[in-house]
Amino acid sequence: MDDHVRPHRVVVVGGGFGGLYAARVFRRRPVTLTLIDSAGQHLFQPLLYQCATGVLSEGQIAVPLRRILKRHENVECLRATVTGVDPAGRLVAARRPDGSTLRIPYDHLIVSAGLGQSYFGHDEFARFAPGMKTIGDALTIRGKILDAFEMAESLSDPVQRRRWLTFALVGAGPTGVELAGQIRELATQTLRDEFRHIDPEDARVLLFEGGPAALASFGPKLSARAALALDKLGVELYLRSLVTRVDETGIEVKAADGTLTHYAAATVLWAAGVRAPGLAGALARATGAEQDRVGRIKVTPRCTIPGHPEIFVVGDLMALEGLPGVAEVAMQSGRYAGLCVRDVVEHRPRERKPFRYRDLGSAAYLSRGRAVFSFGRIRFSGFVGWVVWLFVHIAFLTGFRNRVGAVLSWAVTFSRGGRRERATLEPVPGPAGEGEEP
Amino acid sequence: MDDHVRPHRVVVVGGGFGGLYAARVFRRRPVTLTLIDSAGQHLFQPLLYQCATGVLSEGQIAVPLRRILKRHENVECLRATVTGVDPAGRLVAARRPDGSTLRIPYDHLIVSAGLGQSYFGHDEFARFAPGMKTIGDALTIRGKILDAFEMAESLSDPVQRRRWLTFALVGAGPTGVELAGQIRELATQTLRDEFRHIDPEDARVLLFEGGPAALASFGPKLSARAALALDKLGVELYLRSLVTRVDETGIEVKAADGTLTHYAAATVLWAAGVRAPGLAGALARATGAEQDRVGRIKVTPRCTIPGHPEIFVVGDLMALEGLPGVAEVAMQSGRYAGLCVRDVVEHRPRERKPFRYRDLGSAAYLSRGRAVFSFGRIRFSGFVGWVVWLFVHIAFLTGFRNRVGAVLSWAVTFSRGGRRERATLEPVPGPAGEGEEP
Repeated sequence: MDDHVRPHRVVVVGGGFGGLYAARVFRRRPVTLTLIDSAGQHLFQPLLYQCATGVLSEGQIAVPLRRILKRHENVECLRATVTGVDPAGRLVAARRPDGSTLRIPYDHLIVSAGLGQSYFGHDEFARFAPGMKTIGDALTIRGKILDAFEMAESLSDPVQRRRWLTFALVGAGPTGVELAGQIRELATQTLRDEFRHIDPEDARVLLFEGGPAALASFGPKLSARAALALDKLGVELYLRSLVTRVDETGIEVKAADGTLTHYAAATVLWAAGVRAPGLAGALARATGAEQDRVGRIKVTPRCTIPGHPEIFVVGDLMALEGLPGVAEVAMQSGRYAGLCVRDVVEHRPRERKPFRYRDLGSAAYLSRGRAVFSFGRIRFSGFVGWVVWLFVHIAFLTGFRNRVGAVLSWAVTFSRGGRRERATLEPVPGPAGEGEEP
Repeated sequence: MDDHVRPHRVVVVGGGFGGLYAARVFRRRPVTLTLIDSAGQHLFQPLLYQCATGVLSEGQIAVPLRRILKRHENVECLRATVTGVDPAGRLVAARRPDGSTLRIPYDHLIVSAGLGQSYFGHDEFARFAPGMKTIGDALTIRGKILDAFEMAESLSDPVQRRRWLTFALVGAGPTGVELAGQIRELATQTLRDEFRHIDPEDARVLLFEGGPAALASFGPKLSARAALALDKLGVELYLRSLVTRVDETGIEVKAADGTLTHYAAATVLWAAGVRAPGLAGALARATGAEQDRVGRIKVTPRCTIPGHPEIFVVGDLMALEGLPGVAEVAMQSGRYAGLCVRDVVEHRPRERKPFRYRDLGSAAYLSRGRAVFSFGRIRFSGFVGWVVWLFVHIAFLTGFRNRVGAVLSWAVTFSRGGRRERATLEPVPGPAGEGEEP
């Protein structure tokens, strides 16, 4: 077909921060845009831990992409999993929810597929230690945490009870720190007075970190503040500790001095390590792009694959000047890629300057009324950090209703410790329903 | 131990309306009560269809029993599945979430285990046609409904597209009727303007009913009103139609005149038929109790098992004078059983009169601003019925926050068709995350 007749075709892979901010650039432009996402929804990943601990519902943090982009008439959303890219034929291969496959042609491709969980070569840990990447993960973890208290309540053997009341978390980045704090707040505030045989406050939360500091990316001063806040909450932080085994009995950890310790913990949760999805390898092989240690695609300063100015890689999957895998980088690089493509479509003569990340700060929630916030050299912690945390999260949550809903949920959780979303999935019954022969 | 020293032990099986209303009777009485529920939560079953269609979150309709009964100091809640009863030893056998078993002694036993889904001897249908009994069912159905629109959008073959846009529901009781109406409202209001290739309004919703009327329990006048309202909504109602087959292609139905018709439908949902859980059979064998056609336990006019005045069966599982399986019967019979046990504990000389159900009316939601309500000979439909529906449901929802939350959710859904809870589970990825080799 003649290039002057048919609109320019842009395909965006992934509906996270990178893909969504890329897609938004094309509103009312002479472009047909296809946004492909395996879940068909935009997940507000930074609040996933609140869904896992009963503060927010899935609907408050995951919104259908087609609802967000309803008024972008030239955008079509496709719920499918991208399995490969053919750069010569300019085609993306994808699989629909029912397993059937389809191919989508593109003129420009923006890949923002994100990163998956890595178990550092020990995928067998996954069975015992679920990760924190998807809505499904959050609901699994919610069920595991609440069931552990139920189990402890019903057992009289103190050793068993202690094992069920021990929660081991791996990784002291924002997700691990926030999850650890929330489990302690759940135990000490939400569950207070609800049990007859155990005191939920006895719940031990162990947080293991391979590196020398919690929240290392926030700098030494805030790391120290975070360590203090965790200690106050009752979270036991173990630094320079490498996980050597996870199984049904608990977790084995190697300390800096080489000693191995086994912790009996019925609940082990994984918030450490990222790994590129298989798509990244397929894309690298097809284009000759290089990948870094965890499989991120190395890009040019324009966020494109070398030799392929029509293929952009943005967000967590992009390896560029050591930029961190945070929402803000994804938003800015996604938007940048979108603007670059728009320049081409609109025949702008001047080439856009290389991508430059503007650090607008990052925040991590520690406990009620306490958070850390860093913005360049400016660092807040405690109540001021928390106020900033609150405003940043409200500002970036998608949709007016979700903002109002989250504020109401937070008001209750922060003031009285209550959590509305404590529903868990029932055990799968036989065809005849609940009971069965003894 | 001496009976005068240790408190009277009451065990309640099931935390639905029957079990919860039984347990509530014992507050501050000299009794230790154990409430055993396989999910550990009270599910507001009458609104499960709203969770399945994205109006409400799971947390709004399912609340942990131990939170509801927090202030009932003599009640302990146990998350376990009851597998059998030993009436001679006065023991209940149960299984914890981790699979381990335990035995709980009782002096009085109140069984309110509810009914499961029945596929009328065709359990193979379950694979293609999920039922509507649990939170897990609701989330499965939510995903199936929303994915069907996604599939239709991405397919160009009109036959395939039509199949994905056809929803077949079995059973025109309140659940089937409400679910059918909600799917049409979702299609015509919520999803409006969100798709580029399909018009969600084209979604066909077929509702098959074996009997001669929809909402038969509401009487002929309201059945006719409901049929009219369904027609107005675009639901195709097929009466006197028996399902003969369900598979991946759709559903085969036998009409009253014996003709077989196959409907190509990618989504088949099951809201017909109940069956007692395996526990009912075990209980009947152990006590010599009789079961009716679907396995309900036949009880005396005092809701006890003949020859076992210490074992009560209440709620949906109770077979007594043809009382219907509605929440109101469960609440009243549960409370009645609790009061009978309290009489014994408090050594009241006068025996309580046999259980008598007071029909406080029943309501079913049809569409925005339309419901039917029957109370003895009084029958409302349309807007007045809807106002009554609204008040009844707000009054019986558990917890102040859930009432406020539901009212806010309804305000948005009823006024603008928006639904907040449209999050679905992601497809299960391989260990490396989203993509995979082509």
